[in-house]
Amino acid sequence: MTETRTQTVTGDRARILARRDRLRELAVTRDLDAILVTNLVNVCYLTGFTGSNAALLVRAGGADVLATDGRYTTQAGTQAPDLDLLIERACGRALAATASKTGTVRLGYESHVVTVDELAGLQAAMAPGDPVAELLSIGPAVEALRSIKDAAEIEALREACAIADRALTSLIDSGGLQAGRTEREVGRDLDNRMLSLGAEAVSFETIVAAGANSAIPHHRPTEAVLTAGDFVKLDFGATFAGYHSDMTRTFVLGRPADWQTDVYDLVATAQRLGREALVVGASVADVDAAARLPIVEAGHGPAFSHGLGHGVGLEIHEAPALSALGAGKLHVDMAVTVEPGVYLVGRGGVRIEDTLVVGTDGPDLLTMTSKELVAL
Amino acid sequence: MTETRTQTVTGDRARILARRDRLRELAVTRDLDAILVTNLVNVCYLTGFTGSNAALLVRAGGADVLATDGRYTTQAGTQAPDLDLLIERACGRALAATASKTGTVRLGYESHVVTVDELAGLQAAMAPGDPVAELLSIGPAVEALRSIKDAAEIEALREACAIADRALTSLIDSGGLQAGRTEREVGRDLDNRMLSLGAEAVSFETIVAAGANSAIPHHRPTEAVLTAGDFVKLDFGATFAGYHSDMTRTFVLGRPADWQTDVYDLVATAQRLGREALVVGASVADVDAAARLPIVEAGHGPAFSHGLGHGVGLEIHEAPALSALGAGKLHVDMAVTVEPGVYLVGRGGVRIEDTLVVGTDGPDLLTMTSKELVAL
Repeated sequence: MTETRTQTVTGDRARILARRDRLRELAVTRDLDAILVTNLVNVCYLTGFTGSNAALLVRAGGADVLATDGRYTTQAGTQAPDLDLLIERACGRALAATASKTGTVRLGYESHVVTVDELAGLQAAMAPGDPVAELLSIGPAVEALRSIKDAAEIEALREACAIADRALTSLIDSGGLQAGRTEREVGRDLDNRMLSLGAEAVSFETIVAAGANSAIPHHRPTEAVLTAGDFVKLDFGATFAGYHSDMTRTFVLGRPADWQTDVYDLVATAQRLGREALVVGASVADVDAAARLPIVEAGHGPAFSHGLGHGVGLEIHEAPALSALGAGKLHVDMAVTVEPGVYLVGRGGVRIEDTLVVGTDGPDLLTMTSKELVAL
Repeated sequence: MTETRTQTVTGDRARILARRDRLRELAVTRDLDAILVTNLVNVCYLTGFTGSNAALLVRAGGADVLATDGRYTTQAGTQAPDLDLLIERACGRALAATASKTGTVRLGYESHVVTVDELAGLQAAMAPGDPVAELLSIGPAVEALRSIKDAAEIEALREACAIADRALTSLIDSGGLQAGRTEREVGRDLDNRMLSLGAEAVSFETIVAAGANSAIPHHRPTEAVLTAGDFVKLDFGATFAGYHSDMTRTFVLGRPADWQTDVYDLVATAQRLGREALVVGASVADVDAAARLPIVEAGHGPAFSHGLGHGVGLEIHEAPALSALGAGKLHVDMAVTVEPGVYLVGRGGVRIEDTLVVGTDGPDLLTMTSKELVAL
């Protein structure tokens, strides 16, 4: 790292350089000369560059290089001014060749992202005729770094969650969630409110699921008309500064039937237990189990057919997975969702979801909308 | 293929079965017992199933199997009723194990999609201790099938293009494209018009690029205000029945300056030459070259910094690539875009793009909006 470079790196750039330095430490620890990052979201995290074709070479000795193609020359210069830039369409291969030419023998790469064909391309680019050069997997090491959010990332998530909260409040206050509208109308209305309230985009295709459709966990909005007595499940989020919020609320149109209250209360209890289990050091499987227990005990175990939650950040789904199959423990400043659901095929389903940040004094709740059962 | 099965397969299902049968022919030709398809878009193309986790086993002898996880059991039964269903989260590995247990020794797989880690997982799942079992790359064979559209796909593309055309007309007729609005406002307005006119979704994040921003090929809309004298470039599309349209038009706000007319006419000429070069049997590199020639002759070669166009269908970018680096020839019923551009950094840029289908009597133009320079 040259002095000139340090002087130009301030604010956001310093924060982003610190991320590359953490990856650099990993390179040193594993005796790698350099690491080739080809997961585009990881490249964005480590450089600030948001183009759709890019790769990054992080060297143990510094002097990192960002590669992208000619469409993005200007953008890369603006978003990542502190990085050397290589303009080449086949970004990963070009950087492998660059690494090889500048003495890299042991090159780390992302084996969970690189395809079989691309690995062959990297090998060919890196060491034509050089049997010494090696490509060594670093696995999802950058994703692991990303799972712990810094203060600016948490504030971006907080704002993304606040936009979604405000949009839902505004939808309800204006009577936008009522019998007679279609799922698609409600979804577009909610999306437009998020965009008007400052969302860069919606986090994913908004789920609006009414009546029996609410029993489909990942229902896409249709022309189905909301009807009195229906459960209506809304699962949606906003992005802000690149970060995704994710929340689900389930309403009843009119007076809830007893079975609806029962299912709702069960899911709300599970969701509370899941949030309370978000303790630093807890295993992710234990957090899932804590929320799942009352649902299983009520005989609805098979009707909770997905994991409890997931990490959220630059992607809507990222590490850690809160599920029985997940591995690892919770760390301070992990941002996760807690979203149990019970789905009764043909009748309806309930899911309640918040986004939270794990902390030493208990989780920081970013989703502020009430979780009381609201009858509209 | 059993008689019972044939009887239940009609309409769309017959069309989708025909796709799997074409892949089955490839399996037979290459002496493969089965092919494992893990590219989700390819799975959708070959089954009709649209869930976010799936894999497909196409067997040389029939009895294909679709795998997905528990979230999608109901949806898979509805969308792909003619396929055997396997419910398992690790879809690819579960199908590799199924294939192995039922006698598959030579299993084709998609080496351009399967990651290095996933290949190891497939190998482990397929043949624990069986050194005879082989995983053999079929490369992008399904993408090659997808590049040739059937009649229903072309009609879906035609409607997707018509929705985008109508949305643009409606935007202009209502005065939505005028000085004083921001790029984001115009983008949201156009998106909402597409959705109101029957789009399932927008094809990609709509590009609205005004003034100097129009010189950035892939500009994301900002709070920049449209100003008299600006070029305004709109690149957008709608999806319909899963198929994507893609079009670009560039306008001038007010009376065009001479340099603007010159650049516009140059790009329009290039675009016409590109469309005229869409001849069955032409190499994709020659099509690119035909459109590029006048731009190079005018001294703007470096300012046309991307390929001429791309295939379009279930994805916004798919085979074939119309570029100097592209391989292969045009076939009847390939759907492609033709989108030359000239970008003058700091001043502004022009791109004009249509979606067309290659045919024996010349291309079928799906984008109907005029390409005359419109001064607003």
